[in-house]
Amino acid sequence: MAMTRVLVLHSVSLMRSALAALLKTEGSFEVSSAGWRSARRYVGALRPDVCVVDLDCPGTAALLEGGERDGEACPVPRAGLLVLASAGRPGALRRAFEARALGFVDKHGSPQRLVRGITKVAAGERFVDESLAFGFLEASRMPLTARELSVLARAAEGESIAEIARGLHLSNGTVRNYMASATRKVGARNRIDAIRITQGAGWV
Amino acid sequence: MAMTRVLVLHSVSLMRSALAALLKTEGSFEVSSAGWRSARRYVGALRPDVCVVDLDCPGTAALLEGGERDGEACPVPRAGLLVLASAGRPGALRRAFEARALGFVDKHGSPQRLVRGITKVAAGERFVDESLAFGFLEASRMPLTARELSVLARAAEGESIAEIARGLHLSNGTVRNYMASATRKVGARNRIDAIRITQGAGWV
Repeated sequence: MAMTRVLVLHSVSLMRSALAALLKTEGSFEVSSAGWRSARRYVGALRPDVCVVDLDCPGTAALLEGGERDGEACPVPRAGLLVLASAGRPGALRRAFEARALGFVDKHGSPQRLVRGITKVAAGERFVDESLAFGFLEASRMPLTARELSVLARAAEGESIAEIARGLHLSNGTVRNYMASATRKVGARNRIDAIRITQGAGWV
Repeated sequence: MAMTRVLVLHSVSLMRSALAALLKTEGSFEVSSAGWRSARRYVGALRPDVCVVDLDCPGTAALLEGGERDGEACPVPRAGLLVLASAGRPGALRRAFEARALGFVDKHGSPQRLVRGITKVAAGERFVDESLAFGFLEASRMPLTARELSVLARAAEGESIAEIARGLHLSNGTVRNYMASATRKVGARNRIDAIRITQGAGWV
């Protein structure tokens, strides 16, 4: 039987080396690792059975959504996608789900769970750590609309009401309304609190 | 010669296992790993020569400042402290410097640099990755006062002006003044932008 080929994608080089070392130690896989920029090249050259992606890496959202932008194919092959996730970030879980990830492994779990997840995903089966189940439930009832989310995301980048309005082709009053409804829905005390809550959950 | 004892401290269990696997593969160290809660116990039992701490972990600031609060000794032995850092977060670098870290290893570097850093720190020598030099320069000219920082930190938690004023025993006007001066000093467009910039730099 051919060895399972695993590609670890992580934006921080020391972390991808560490995860690769862990997989070489704990499982019998053929392991490679790469950063965002060389992801496409590695995927093309290695044809990995499983891609391991850390959802908490900055830039993961863009990586997983690659397919929808610029007409470019997403560099991560969706069939064998396994993500490292935390239960407290339902937004990130949802993003991975929408990118058709097959494996969801809790970062707060044991290396053996990761090895088991990789084996499952390599066989084309779904693998979800039970400790992430509550996060999925949270993800299913995201209270914000796409508009409210994009207003919050721009505010989080430091844009003023007027800048957000210009950027989204809305009136200042409408942006204020979206901001107010988003703040109310997530149970925040004010705008800054709303940004903190939605960022913490991985929604923006 | 006795083997160097290394203790990896990381809040995410999969990441500390991965870093431990990397160090076992790349160097000839006696490696253990622990999370925040068991840090003190592990340090006491193992008497590590070097403690490896990731500055980007949530809770690292509290861990490194442990000594100053509650009269409790900091669980991390300062003599052999080596931190994993990024050049873009000068605030975190400064915190590690103030916690008397001896080793500063760039997370975007190679595993061999980490091994070299550990060997140096175990010998009681300082080790600083040159790629972090610019971060240290930035860290040396932090523009905010302690008051401005604490106002921003509370605002980032979602507190209103009135709540911050009550918490810090200041008037609302004074809090507004601190907020305005902090926003101006970091070159931010507004309060939310000021929080984004200072959090990104690791100052709060």
